[in-house]
Amino acid sequence: MSLMITGNTRLFGIVADPITQVRTPQVLNAWFEAEGLDAVLVPMHVAEDGLAAVFDALRKMQNLGGFIATVPHKTRALELCDEVSAAARAIGAVNTVRREADGRLVGDMFDGRGFVEGLKAQGHDPAAKSVLLVGAGGAAAAIAFALAQAGVQRLSIANRTQAKAQAMAGRVSQGVPGVQVDAAAPDPRGYDIVVNATSLGMKEGDALPLDTSLLSPSNLVAEIIMKPEMTALLQAAQERGCRIHLGRHMLDEQVRLMGRFMTGLAVE
Amino acid sequence: MSLMITGNTRLFGIVADPITQVRTPQVLNAWFEAEGLDAVLVPMHVAEDGLAAVFDALRKMQNLGGFIATVPHKTRALELCDEVSAAARAIGAVNTVRREADGRLVGDMFDGRGFVEGLKAQGHDPAAKSVLLVGAGGAAAAIAFALAQAGVQRLSIANRTQAKAQAMAGRVSQGVPGVQVDAAAPDPRGYDIVVNATSLGMKEGDALPLDTSLLSPSNLVAEIIMKPEMTALLQAAQERGCRIHLGRHMLDEQVRLMGRFMTGLAVE
Repeated sequence: MSLMITGNTRLFGIVADPITQVRTPQVLNAWFEAEGLDAVLVPMHVAEDGLAAVFDALRKMQNLGGFIATVPHKTRALELCDEVSAAARAIGAVNTVRREADGRLVGDMFDGRGFVEGLKAQGHDPAAKSVLLVGAGGAAAAIAFALAQAGVQRLSIANRTQAKAQAMAGRVSQGVPGVQVDAAAPDPRGYDIVVNATSLGMKEGDALPLDTSLLSPSNLVAEIIMKPEMTALLQAAQERGCRIHLGRHMLDEQVRLMGRFMTGLAVE
Repeated sequence: MSLMITGNTRLFGIVADPITQVRTPQVLNAWFEAEGLDAVLVPMHVAEDGLAAVFDALRKMQNLGGFIATVPHKTRALELCDEVSAAARAIGAVNTVRREADGRLVGDMFDGRGFVEGLKAQGHDPAAKSVLLVGAGGAAAAIAFALAQAGVQRLSIANRTQAKAQAMAGRVSQGVPGVQVDAAAPDPRGYDIVVNATSLGMKEGDALPLDTSLLSPSNLVAEIIMKPEMTALLQAAQERGCRIHLGRHMLDEQVRLMGRFMTGLAVE
């Protein structure tokens, strides 16, 4: 990548702790270049006790366009913004912040919308489909809201701790009225789309997130795990004749959504 | 320049208002690359009322190596640092800040030392020489201290408002005992080195900083103005057979000094 940073270059950041593993600088700087924007995104390593001070300073940094907030800052970032989207408030987290010209920080959450846009980009629009979502953590919550907003016919949430799945189903129902949302067992039979939103599959020897012997060719099986690209779940799904959807499609679309939001381009 | 910013890249900044005219990102990013350092310097546009908040945040930014402070922040930066060099305190300004691992901000001033190192690099060591310095602003003060520290035999300061020249001479005498420092008329006769540290010469039609008919081939005439490279003073000096010293030599050496200080390399 070829960058020439000058006094005119707009500044963007990613705030995280730890910082060394983040890949956002590479992917968003490539996106800026592809869009022909004079902008640069740099890593900002900030621990939780420094986050409020950094938000205050970024309000005062007049050439700052915005920043990404990632682990462990997504929840606290919601509180520190001056304004957040309804989706971010419902999910309880912010991962992208835009700085307005007057210094106000406006937050939004693109984890779930990146997933839905990734499905669409691969020809798998979830509208009017039935979806089984396995997991009830932060990523699962964002995806659940985005799927409900995309107009799924039915969304079932399966989680080892069923109370968490029920609580999340309640929040999604409340946030996006008119969609059927329930807690269910991790049984893929009868669903159009099955999504693994747990971290099971990242490490060698992880348990499977569901009983793959119940998968059939009518299921589309989707991952959000990027490494390894082919998880044990996806391999089993492919062997049983299912279509599969890779984790990286979520990131690809999310980068575009976050870039457009931070630079003030319309997101849709 | 080829930069690949990752989560491992150390962050540096230049804090200024306005910001678009700064050239430090280009020159320091080129220096980082020449030194083989995984580091990037970005512009940070901050007005005076935001400076304290930005210093607080930069203390908390764990991958920040340091930053340059420039117009109009050099004086206030001195107050906001946790520790400053004796030279910076005597001059009353800081232009470079290093962030220690524990978050402490340590300031120093390299305007004057850049000028002296530039003279040396061009074979004009000012030690034991007599110097006429024209001007008594911030740049002149930094250069006066650096010349005194470099062991000039005599330093005379000429300024339109003579009281300012006298006050500055007093501060330099106090800060660097053992050097003869006085206020004088802008008459170059009898001096080895004549330095223009006013802004006269930047704009077409500016008055000359001194009576060039008094220059003789024994004078070395030095500028700190970078644009135009050949000021009216330097042109007149050259016509009268003087050796001349360009403004850019100061910046070249200052970049190296600031880079080494911020990255924790020994400055000398």
